[in-house]
Amino acid sequence: MTTPSDFNRYLETRRAEIDAALEAVLPVPPACPPPIAEAMRYSLFAGGKRLRPILTLAAAEAVVQSGHTDPHSRDTGMALAMTAACAVELIHTYSLVHDDLPDMDDDDLRRGRPTAHVVYGAGVAILSGDALLTQAFVALARCLSDEPSEFERRRLRAIARIAEAAGAAGMVGGQVLDLAATGTGPGGEAARRRKGSEETDLREMHERKTGALIGAAAVTGAILAGGDEAAVEAIDRYAMHLGLAFQIVDDILDVEGSAAELGKTAGKDAAAGKPTYPSVHGLDRSKVLATEAVGSAREALASVGLGGRLNEIAEWVVSRSH
Amino acid sequence: MTTPSDFNRYLETRRAEIDAALEAVLPVPPACPPPIAEAMRYSLFAGGKRLRPILTLAAAEAVVQSGHTDPHSRDTGMALAMTAACAVELIHTYSLVHDDLPDMDDDDLRRGRPTAHVVYGAGVAILSGDALLTQAFVALARCLSDEPSEFERRRLRAIARIAEAAGAAGMVGGQVLDLAATGTGPGGEAARRRKGSEETDLREMHERKTGALIGAAAVTGAILAGGDEAAVEAIDRYAMHLGLAFQIVDDILDVEGSAAELGKTAGKDAAAGKPTYPSVHGLDRSKVLATEAVGSAREALASVGLGGRLNEIAEWVVSRSH
Repeated sequence: MTTPSDFNRYLETRRAEIDAALEAVLPVPPACPPPIAEAMRYSLFAGGKRLRPILTLAAAEAVVQSGHTDPHSRDTGMALAMTAACAVELIHTYSLVHDDLPDMDDDDLRRGRPTAHVVYGAGVAILSGDALLTQAFVALARCLSDEPSEFERRRLRAIARIAEAAGAAGMVGGQVLDLAATGTGPGGEAARRRKGSEETDLREMHERKTGALIGAAAVTGAILAGGDEAAVEAIDRYAMHLGLAFQIVDDILDVEGSAAELGKTAGKDAAAGKPTYPSVHGLDRSKVLATEAVGSAREALASVGLGGRLNEIAEWVVSRSH
Repeated sequence: MTTPSDFNRYLETRRAEIDAALEAVLPVPPACPPPIAEAMRYSLFAGGKRLRPILTLAAAEAVVQSGHTDPHSRDTGMALAMTAACAVELIHTYSLVHDDLPDMDDDDLRRGRPTAHVVYGAGVAILSGDALLTQAFVALARCLSDEPSEFERRRLRAIARIAEAAGAAGMVGGQVLDLAATGTGPGGEAARRRKGSEETDLREMHERKTGALIGAAAVTGAILAGGDEAAVEAIDRYAMHLGLAFQIVDDILDVEGSAAELGKTAGKDAAAGKPTYPSVHGLDRSKVLATEAVGSAREALASVGLGGRLNEIAEWVVSRSH
């Protein structure tokens, strides 16, 4: 068992490594026009927690350390896991930029700073999101010059998983449901009519909007590091429970947190009439559900002898205050 | 030499095949929420020319027919070329949806129909573009169950090329320059100051915004069909000249065409004060430049003994009236 300060050092080290890797995958002028490079950097280096890429690296580490992998290709596997870590953070950042737009959630503040559209205008903000999303696939598809051929199939599997998680069946689909839930998008009326299925709708919206990419982040780390199917499958279940815990805590923080801690407007979801875990289940029950989800996440890992940093990350997710 | 009606039949056959393949790669409910599936279909099946995917298939055909490929894997190669054809059309469609947004070019009409944001609202229009872009990479990364391993590297090469063409260094970068040229985006002032380099700026903007994806469309067809390096390189040069010809003709049509033929507002670029080939070079010189570009495209192909449909496509691009 490690101490909290040891875990904090781990997070800081990982963040520094991830930021350096993100610097290396971003396009720079003259390869691209300066304004798009600047707008991409503005949102990417805005003090995010880097939860998703840390999860990718921790999943890769977990399978390597537990022997659920082929020892001959560990270094290449860990290098590819860093590529996937960058890709999921690029995609997560793009989703925040687009979600904050005036035509979506209309947020002027994110992580305590003006959002991209406030700084660059909505047109360039949309384009910077498009560019961040696309750059994820540039990073994932560019092979190392001496890359063993066994990694090609792993890369393609990772690309498919990440793209599915980001697209219509995942994150984008979840945001469409989110827009509909507040009645601003198509289907809003139907969503409001089906009060009885509110809990199912809430869960589907979160599984798509948040859970899918968290799942892809963890699973692609395990795949690229060469995890066997048992490990990949266990990490997939772990991440599903973790994603749920993450979203419940997010909803709780929207009620209990202060704007200063959150770096964004508190109470916004409730004010918009969006269904949330506290609004559907109450605050106390929501906290129990979050703790139960973390327990299920730990059990999924334990079933194949994994744990370590992945468990600590799960604890971190429920104990965070922003 | 084939007759015009033979070429028209070829185009019609290809369009039908491409539309069927696009149907098969689109996500459908319940895998994704119905509203996003509907919005994606609306823009994708809007009567486009399908120039880019036809180019992908014609490039694949050209290398297969000329013997610039390994005879053992032709069928798989042509199937993968169709996947790339779908991907470039998904990406082209997403770019139109985002370019038409009120925060960008603010177009209400596209191919004679109301644009996506008019029908679904700007929020869902942005998301449908995001989903179309992402679906391109889902399609490119999902391997066939019995796919020979030699195709994995080809797929990754195609994904990298398409993503680079679509992102900050390509299409998105070009749209940022386009916004800047009309003074609505950052860098507009600088763009206006550099009058002397107007011709260079115009060419850079078009190479990124239109040329890069046209190039990727053709080159990935050649790569996936197993073309050798000489053929891939020649098709790359062909596509660069073709992209230039395409854009010059687009600019000419904006001056000479009618709204009825174009299915969009004519004279819009000139009214917005955007630099165009006719505004920089005059109408007559622009027509000469377009014809010269097609000549250079043919020469690039002839250098490795290619031609056929790819030449006919080049003629079609300059002779079109919309």
